[in-house]
Amino acid sequence: MDSNTRLKKQMQFALEMDKEKGIGRQTYVLSALNALRKENDAEHGWHLAVMVMLLSEYANEKIDVSRTVEMVIIHDVVEIDAGDTYAYDDAGNATKAEREQKAAERIFGMLPKDQAEYFMNLWLEFEEAKTPEAKFATAIDSVQPLMLNDASNGLAWREHGVAASKVKERAERKVRPGSERLYEMVFDMINENVKKGNLKDM
Amino acid sequence: MDSNTRLKKQMQFALEMDKEKGIGRQTYVLSALNALRKENDAEHGWHLAVMVMLLSEYANEKIDVSRTVEMVIIHDVVEIDAGDTYAYDDAGNATKAEREQKAAERIFGMLPKDQAEYFMNLWLEFEEAKTPEAKFATAIDSVQPLMLNDASNGLAWREHGVAASKVKERAERKVRPGSERLYEMVFDMINENVKKGNLKDM
Repeated sequence: MDSNTRLKKQMQFALEMDKEKGIGRQTYVLSALNALRKENDAEHGWHLAVMVMLLSEYANEKIDVSRTVEMVIIHDVVEIDAGDTYAYDDAGNATKAEREQKAAERIFGMLPKDQAEYFMNLWLEFEEAKTPEAKFATAIDSVQPLMLNDASNGLAWREHGVAASKVKERAERKVRPGSERLYEMVFDMINENVKKGNLKDM
Repeated sequence: MDSNTRLKKQMQFALEMDKEKGIGRQTYVLSALNALRKENDAEHGWHLAVMVMLLSEYANEKIDVSRTVEMVIIHDVVEIDAGDTYAYDDAGNATKAEREQKAAERIFGMLPKDQAEYFMNLWLEFEEAKTPEAKFATAIDSVQPLMLNDASNGLAWREHGVAASKVKERAERKVRPGSERLYEMVFDMINENVKKGNLKDM
């Protein structure tokens, strides 16, 4: 591949990324509570990158911070094709892996081969959640919406009638393997939201 | 500072970052062209991070990619207080440095001392645009809106009646020191947009 073709492919991918700004999520953005605007994936990815930089000292194992930042930046790119699947949507979650795999192949496939492989591997590493970096990225990916839900007095939780037991089970599965300290913090956060009636006590 | 206070400060900062999702910019998001939605700073920061990962091979000097990614992630955080200043707003640009310095002190000042210093230095490094990383970050910060303006047929340029000479001068100053190759690409892009009538030929 000549160098102009390579740059052209890379710029086509960069432009494709603009679409992530149109993928809505279920978490409310606090700065627009009056308009009840929910965040999108690009905003979510950016916020996770900040939080990884900020909170890496709480990872259970030593992590490569920069690889973890890269991982959270690209982890939702597949939703450009596959859409956002709400954490507590069981039906959607049943077909998620297949839809996202197909999306990853098309989207990362836009890149020059070496970069397509690099991004695909980074995404697969996140999905498998086995390395210290992927475990911490997964933890932050759950802590961020918990933090925003807590700060908005449980707006998205109340809208979906979410049960505390489901949020706890998810925190146990997603946050704890990456960070005991952050798990402890969100566990307290969940209990407080049960008291406030923001999460169903079941 | 005990460890609970430290985590509390860090989480307050993480939540403060949510406000960046409410800072509007002048560039149109392509996926919402019908609604004419402009991107916000969080989306812009995320897109820059992807583009740094993608295009680092075109930096004039060898760069530390992860430091550059961190730099673009936090570079606009000061706009939470100082607001976004449009590249071609001369009056706004006259007071920009002072407003942003004050904002940086308040916002990064929310963090534990070591992290406040780390983020402040990262932001100052970006602002000074002297290191290879800061020069490349600055280049990408200009290439991204140029790419989106080009792809939207010059929507924001036409709205503001922007002159090609101003865009060229800015590309020469912002893109060229970080990347000759990307400068060459945007130079061609600018000329094409003059031909299409998207930029004023003056």
